[in-house]
Amino acid sequence: MSFEDRLGAVASAVGVRLESALADYGDLDVAQAMRWATKGGKRLRGFLVIEGAILHDVPERHAIEVAAAIEAVHAYSLVHDDLPCMDDDALRRGQPTVHIRWDEATAVLAGDALQTLAFELLTDPACHPDGAVRADLALSLARAAGAGGMVRGQALDIAAERADTPLTLEGTRALQAGKTGALIGWAAEAGPRLAASDIGPLSDYARALGLAFQIADDVLDIEGDAAVAGKAVGKDAAAGKSTFVAHLGLDGAKAEADRLVQEACDALAPYGDRADVLRDCAAYVVARDR
Amino acid sequence: MSFEDRLGAVASAVGVRLESALADYGDLDVAQAMRWATKGGKRLRGFLVIEGAILHDVPERHAIEVAAAIEAVHAYSLVHDDLPCMDDDALRRGQPTVHIRWDEATAVLAGDALQTLAFELLTDPACHPDGAVRADLALSLARAAGAGGMVRGQALDIAAERADTPLTLEGTRALQAGKTGALIGWAAEAGPRLAASDIGPLSDYARALGLAFQIADDVLDIEGDAAVAGKAVGKDAAAGKSTFVAHLGLDGAKAEADRLVQEACDALAPYGDRADVLRDCAAYVVARDR
Repeated sequence: MSFEDRLGAVASAVGVRLESALADYGDLDVAQAMRWATKGGKRLRGFLVIEGAILHDVPERHAIEVAAAIEAVHAYSLVHDDLPCMDDDALRRGQPTVHIRWDEATAVLAGDALQTLAFELLTDPACHPDGAVRADLALSLARAAGAGGMVRGQALDIAAERADTPLTLEGTRALQAGKTGALIGWAAEAGPRLAASDIGPLSDYARALGLAFQIADDVLDIEGDAAVAGKAVGKDAAAGKSTFVAHLGLDGAKAEADRLVQEACDALAPYGDRADVLRDCAAYVVARDR
Repeated sequence: MSFEDRLGAVASAVGVRLESALADYGDLDVAQAMRWATKGGKRLRGFLVIEGAILHDVPERHAIEVAAAIEAVHAYSLVHDDLPCMDDDALRRGQPTVHIRWDEATAVLAGDALQTLAFELLTDPACHPDGAVRADLALSLARAAGAGGMVRGQALDIAAERADTPLTLEGTRALQAGKTGALIGWAAEAGPRLAASDIGPLSDYARALGLAFQIADDVLDIEGDAAVAGKAVGKDAAAGKSTFVAHLGLDGAKAEADRLVQEACDALAPYGDRADVLRDCAAYVVARDR
């Protein structure tokens, strides 16, 4: 099975789990919007959970709950990010965003409830028989997603847009470590957390991967095709955002991404060739077109 | 100590805990907004946690974490509720709302991170030494706050405002059971959950209390003084909302609130006079002026 087929298969399985988790909420706009917001996408974070869990011999029935949870958090962050008061995006994964398809109030509530759903999935006994493991998963996710993690990155992004002087390269790194790095890191570490094992190697892998992912996103914003990407491109450059491309140039950014892919692969050494899927994943992250 | 003094003392203690939890997030707008949004208020939900915990001999150092968590969730719901796309309120607890003091993006992010903080507090070992208890607290809160609980109530509220026909009394009850009842219920049940005891009596108490609380809110919206209440009054009536007063009349609503207070007090029978503070609380809820 090719890497992209495997990624697609995991994405389907995570999608099925999210659908069943959302089936109970009836037909209110907010419930429909939650289903809409969790459809499609690469489900890279869910994939990292599943593959990290396989490396640590965690049963898939547990890993799938965690994968669904991180995709719910990711979906919540996108729904709120797309709001008019934030990035004001009308298109996501090739479809109208939630506030366009419904309205802003529904988008606020759907994002809120998707975040809640993530913690529900993680703390349900179906996720893991040991309550201490469930609590640890939820605690580490809260730290990664909250005002010291992802939300901090988003807040730094807003502050940077309003500032008179552009961010330094180090400032851009710090922003992205929160905005995209925190959830990617948590996803990669979830497997060893489920096994109560050392998160060290996958943590190092994810730190390099997350940065490579964001650099690739910045490159896509310049070189990408909106029809393939399923979202607007060229927006960051037009807004004069402090992207990695702005700091390093297009070629410099691509070289840095390649270096980070190598760094990510090296971090997987303790797993030997059992981690080849995650090495493929690192290569995919910088080569993708969406 | 009078009931109001005791309520105030608990509110202070919960406020101190929230302040220390929020101290680490630095001085970004979002961090300042989180502190702003958690200041003041009666902290009724936190009080229910503390008093329920005392009835079950739970150490206060554990209960205070849970009280801070429920107040963080409550604050998140208010920040998002006040947004222009929701209730569009400029005043809360006598102060400008977060999107007025800062901006909408900061209000969205601050609300998001306050929700996250609640789950962080509940799943940290400081909350309870037993991981299964921590996970149970977080799971039950997620169920109470999410698209099957509080958010469902908020979505029903939005749907009702847009509908051509007003809600029935039963529909209004169902809406409020989610919108205000779910968190009040969870708060009252948290004490027995911390002790891994039967939540039954406090669950019954809270169901009646939550409804009485909402009816009192509807009465305050008619009879209240904005300066005392610290928020706009008369809005629900002006908007033609399906309040309990609209269904039952002012006198009928007051009589129903009194009946519910009695029902709440009766539910506390298994605790004898140890639960007198919670009986005072029920009486306070319908007699308050803010």
